[in-house]
Amino acid sequence: MKAIQKPSAEAGFKLIEAEKPVIGPDDVLIKVSTASICGTDLHITQWDQWSASRIKPPLIYGHEFCGIISEIGKNVENYHVGDYVSAEMHLPCRTCYQCMTGHFHICENCKIFGIDLNGCFAEFVKIPQWQLVRIPKTISPEYGACLDSLGNAVHAVSKGEVSGKTVLITGCGPVGLFAIKVAKALGATRVFASDISPYRMEMAHKAQADQVFDASKVTVSDEVKKLTKGRGVDVVLEMSGSSIAIKDAFKALRLAGTLVMFGICGSPVELNLNEDIIFKETRIIGCNGREIFKTWYLMLELLESGQLDIDFIITHQFPLEAFGKAIELIATGNSGKVILTP
Amino acid sequence: MKAIQKPSAEAGFKLIEAEKPVIGPDDVLIKVSTASICGTDLHITQWDQWSASRIKPPLIYGHEFCGIISEIGKNVENYHVGDYVSAEMHLPCRTCYQCMTGHFHICENCKIFGIDLNGCFAEFVKIPQWQLVRIPKTISPEYGACLDSLGNAVHAVSKGEVSGKTVLITGCGPVGLFAIKVAKALGATRVFASDISPYRMEMAHKAQADQVFDASKVTVSDEVKKLTKGRGVDVVLEMSGSSIAIKDAFKALRLAGTLVMFGICGSPVELNLNEDIIFKETRIIGCNGREIFKTWYLMLELLESGQLDIDFIITHQFPLEAFGKAIELIATGNSGKVILTP
Amino acid sequence: MKAIQKPSAEAGFKLIEAEKPVIGPDDVLIKVSTASICGTDLHITQWDQWSASRIKPPLIYGHEFCGIISEIGKNVENYHVGDYVSAEMHLPCRTCYQCMTGHFHICENCKIFGIDLNGCFAEFVKIPQWQLVRIPKTISPEYGACLDSLGNAVHAVSKGEVSGKTVLITGCGPVGLFAIKVAKALGATRVFASDISPYRMEMAHKAQADQVFDASKVTVSDEVKKLTKGRGVDVVLEMSGSSIAIKDAFKALRLAGTLVMFGICGSPVELNLNEDIIFKETRIIGCNGREIFKTWYLMLELLESGQLDIDFIITHQFPLEAFGKAIELIATGNSGKVILTP
Amino acid sequence: MKAIQKPSAEAGFKLIEAEKPVIGPDDVLIKVSTASICGTDLHITQWDQWSASRIKPPLIYGHEFCGIISEIGKNVENYHVGDYVSAEMHLPCRTCYQCMTGHFHICENCKIFGIDLNGCFAEFVKIPQWQLVRIPKTISPEYGACLDSLGNAVHAVSKGEVSGKTVLITGCGPVGLFAIKVAKALGATRVFASDISPYRMEMAHKAQADQVFDASKVTVSDEVKKLTKGRGVDVVLEMSGSSIAIKDAFKALRLAGTLVMFGICGSPVELNLNEDIIFKETRIIGCNGREIFKTWYLMLELLESGQLDIDFIITHQFPLEAFGKAIELIATGNSGKVILTP
Repeated sequence: MKAIQKPSAEAGFKLIEAEKPVIGPDDVLIKVSTASICGTDLHITQWDQWSASRIKPPLIYGHEFCGIISEIGKNVENYHVGDYVSAEMHLPCRTCYQCMTGHFHICENCKIFGIDLNGCFAEFVKIPQWQLVRIPKTISPEYGACLDSLGNAVHAVSKGEVSGKTVLITGCGPVGLFAIKVAKALGATRVFASDISPYRMEMAHKAQADQVFDASKVTVSDEVKKLTKGRGVDVVLEMSGSSIAIKDAFKALRLAGTLVMFGICGSPVELNLNEDIIFKETRIIGCNGREIFKTWYLMLELLESGQLDIDFIITHQFPLEAFGKAIELIATGNSGKVILTP
Repeated sequence: MKAIQKPSAEAGFKLIEAEKPVIGPDDVLIKVSTASICGTDLHITQWDQWSASRIKPPLIYGHEFCGIISEIGKNVENYHVGDYVSAEMHLPCRTCYQCMTGHFHICENCKIFGIDLNGCFAEFVKIPQWQLVRIPKTISPEYGACLDSLGNAVHAVSKGEVSGKTVLITGCGPVGLFAIKVAKALGATRVFASDISPYRMEMAHKAQADQVFDASKVTVSDEVKKLTKGRGVDVVLEMSGSSIAIKDAFKALRLAGTLVMFGICGSPVELNLNEDIIFKETRIIGCNGREIFKTWYLMLELLESGQLDIDFIITHQFPLEAFGKAIELIATGNSGKVILTP
Repeated sequence: MKAIQKPSAEAGFKLIEAEKPVIGPDDVLIKVSTASICGTDLHITQWDQWSASRIKPPLIYGHEFCGIISEIGKNVENYHVGDYVSAEMHLPCRTCYQCMTGHFHICENCKIFGIDLNGCFAEFVKIPQWQLVRIPKTISPEYGACLDSLGNAVHAVSKGEVSGKTVLITGCGPVGLFAIKVAKALGATRVFASDISPYRMEMAHKAQADQVFDASKVTVSDEVKKLTKGRGVDVVLEMSGSSIAIKDAFKALRLAGTLVMFGICGSPVELNLNEDIIFKETRIIGCNGREIFKTWYLMLELLESGQLDIDFIITHQFPLEAFGKAIELIATGNSGKVILTP
Repeated sequence: MKAIQKPSAEAGFKLIEAEKPVIGPDDVLIKVSTASICGTDLHITQWDQWSASRIKPPLIYGHEFCGIISEIGKNVENYHVGDYVSAEMHLPCRTCYQCMTGHFHICENCKIFGIDLNGCFAEFVKIPQWQLVRIPKTISPEYGACLDSLGNAVHAVSKGEVSGKTVLITGCGPVGLFAIKVAKALGATRVFASDISPYRMEMAHKAQADQVFDASKVTVSDEVKKLTKGRGVDVVLEMSGSSIAIKDAFKALRLAGTLVMFGICGSPVELNLNEDIIFKETRIIGCNGREIFKTWYLMLELLESGQLDIDFIITHQFPLEAFGKAIELIATGNSGKVILTP
């Protein structure tokens, strides 16, 4: 089968002809319908510091996809050949304290398909049955490829408890854009967004943010206060990883507000704990991955009920063979979600 | 000034010419722009058992209104003549345990304007400054008259924590209808409604309930299960006070679901605690009035942000003098909110 | 091996010589060190209506135990022969909505060892590895036999969120007695208890309840109010299943209090929803089983940290062969936990 | 009357003879029984940067006290001459968003008696009736003087939701010491404490911390992990304001743990948001003052129920005239709470 592989510990990738995976008794083999490219895949391709410390080549990467089951292991009872599925690619150990108490998504020994184990940028991918999520046919394969990433947004927005609240989303990459849509669907009264890229600000407008701020031109916290009677927003969803945005986010937040941290930061950030956290009784909530499978159920309900329309975020599609072109595009920053078709 | 009065302990009412209220140092006098009629006002007029036990005539009744401040007491600093306001008509004692811990709406010694003290079915009403809520000009006087009642819905829906949830609302009187709208605004994914009155079911459709059930013809819990993969809804908002609806509501609820009780019941209700509460780990939440003033802030944000359109619920308007006709209409059940103009 | 069996659909039991269970690849075989007898085991022995509708004889019953692993299946990696363990005897399906979202204890398709499958009143019991809980050696086998039942109390008290609260526990059977101890350990400021049996009231005193009420002689809600400045308690844990106790429990509860329902009721109960739930904004929380495995971790931490001493509740010990005498004792109501040793 | 005054904008204080305050219609005059000295009073005396920016001399300082009402304003109905009271010294505006939604303790326009207005280091202090808290006679004046400070601890521990949890308290000044006691009373299973001062570590032992770490000799997070099976504690209460302690606190915290920030930091702190917050899903909760009056009710219930014994923390008593000696003592760090008697 065709697959995209990191062959050795250096920048680049290779389109290879690999063996079809051999499944065990609890696995299913899935014929990949669509996959989508995450920022992490760009890092792996470019071989940044994080990739170098984590990835053990050779590795088939990719961790966002959907497909059709083409083979099942002998212990698999709840899934059948022909089923339309996606999968949670964070593989919990199921024995640590977090797993034993239902918090699989922060497993102490988590492995990730496409990072620690072979992933989905291939014609077929092998997944243990416990990781599968059945998808209704009303959800297109293009949407299906985005569920991992959309799940990040659904999880982050859920943690922010945005219902009836004003929300600022700092950073309008794909997860930030999804978050605008999800925040509205989950009952935020007004959603403001900020970025510095004209392309992403344009996308934020398409996502129907109530207001989009150019953080390179205005002080976002000042603008937010004007729109909230001087109080600041109830919730900030930090999706940029920018230390400037993070520092200003605390100013944009009202007393006793909630800041959900999701965007990965390049380096440590200096915070004024007294003014920004203690005196204001700010609540900060770290956010990682998606809840297994609470987030998935919520996401599917949002999609099936028609509360969530993510068409506009899917900006490009490529065949798997054009992975190089797709990655080049993503590196420019001028794309939403980019779909691959094996 | 003109006013609607319960003159003595019997059915009926009287349109009287009363003295304009004399305000104290912490009061304001408000010229009533609009008032609206609550089911309670029907009970008071008809002089039911509850009214007979609670109301001490003579009393000017009415507790839903908005208006313009025409006079202020000498201690009043935050409000001025000409300000557009409504008021929380539940008057907390501010010294009991509930008040001292911020739960004014369940004050142990609560008095209510229009029930225990003179109310707003009059040209002028006297209100202590601590009860006032400033209303933005973008909110019409018709909407302004509905805020007390809409507040009940906002409070009940908030208690249900409906964001990302499926919801059943049993009972489509005005508060139930408001609740449909509010549940959608606060992020419910799907809102089902039930009633037995054709008029109210029609109104529920106008409120854009995803599905409206005629509880006189179908078993609502069965229908709800068909629409939720057999699981039942996440949340029920009980707005009918009907024992039949309540018993079925428990069946319509999924395991570990939440039932918010708001509708007043004519008599005690026999519940199967084992099957309906204990084994299912059901959560029941009693719901009374509105939070002072958390609910009001949320309600105004919902209205100002455009998330809540309640036009269709306001079905009739009458001059104060036509109170008798208005009450007759309400007694038929074929009305939404009915507005009075003094 | 010796075992206690329900041989056929009628009252009684049989001490049998059974085959040692044959384990599958994911099972372990446990040599039972101690077992303890639950009220449910009394019902099964007496063959009440519930038993007749649920139990399919022949069945080895018993669902509270601890023991030493004597054999492991070939897929078992985390447990070894010689390990000291107990087990969660509610067997979740791991595929329903509740299981998939981490609420295994209210699985839609739950089976229970000792009720639906062979249990632990035997020399050996076969348990799937996913159900096991490792016990530290500092916890005695007598304590180990009580963990299922103690877990019910820990779960119920946890749901009541009793920290810093006044608590009334209605019903002082073994789970009620455990709950007194657990409520104190989890930070309740004062714990009141009520029952009608002199033996159980005496036990409640031993559990160091701050006050024990004889519900056959006083109105518990009146007494509770005297001790709480007229307000009522913050939390009631209903452990009696008595309709009289339940109705009075609502009176004993303060405004906006929490009532955790755990005790199974013989028949439906008529509740005054207006006065007891709606106007008071009461919160009712149904409570079933134990969280898998959150409750277990908490319970072990409470025991290991020395916060929980349950010695006095373990009142009797019998060899497995004396099961008949043990059941007779339990039927009198004059016992705490009764331990069996195979 | 005698009083301790900051006469002008420089280090030092003055024992003055002042006029007895003249009360308004909503005030009471309290004869101070005892007052206690807060770290803030040391800063005001020493005239640090914060004091210079906030305090407007001349000012009578002090904000922790109890006493007997000696005079009441004409509007005061709920309090009488002779009543034994303390007071919440944070004066909320009662009109901002936070006040209007019940969060008086983070009022947007808060003033503080003893900082912005004359305080309690005097024979008499004037307090508005809304600020008063009635104290039962079973609580000694020495305890009564500590309620403000104890309230900080109760509020911080409450925010940490420590029931059934392992807790690390970093910093054992008076509020940290109170927090050890309060955490135990509110159901923490084990409470670890750290400091670098031998005196304070000794006090932490007296507070019955399960383990006390000398942060100048060991890495606290390493020690904590040894005691928690490598997982880390469930909750950290940060009471030191030390950047070293804060950075290590994140390491000491388990995945999805809660860090309550209370200790004021001398300067901004650089945090590794990825490792310490985002990937771990850490929850940080800023904590300021005490809830008005929820914290007070809880504190009094803890004291009256006998769950909280704070004798050992009250290490010294001085007459008001010896304020200088008292402040010198506090500056050494070798004291618990220091009580003044006017």
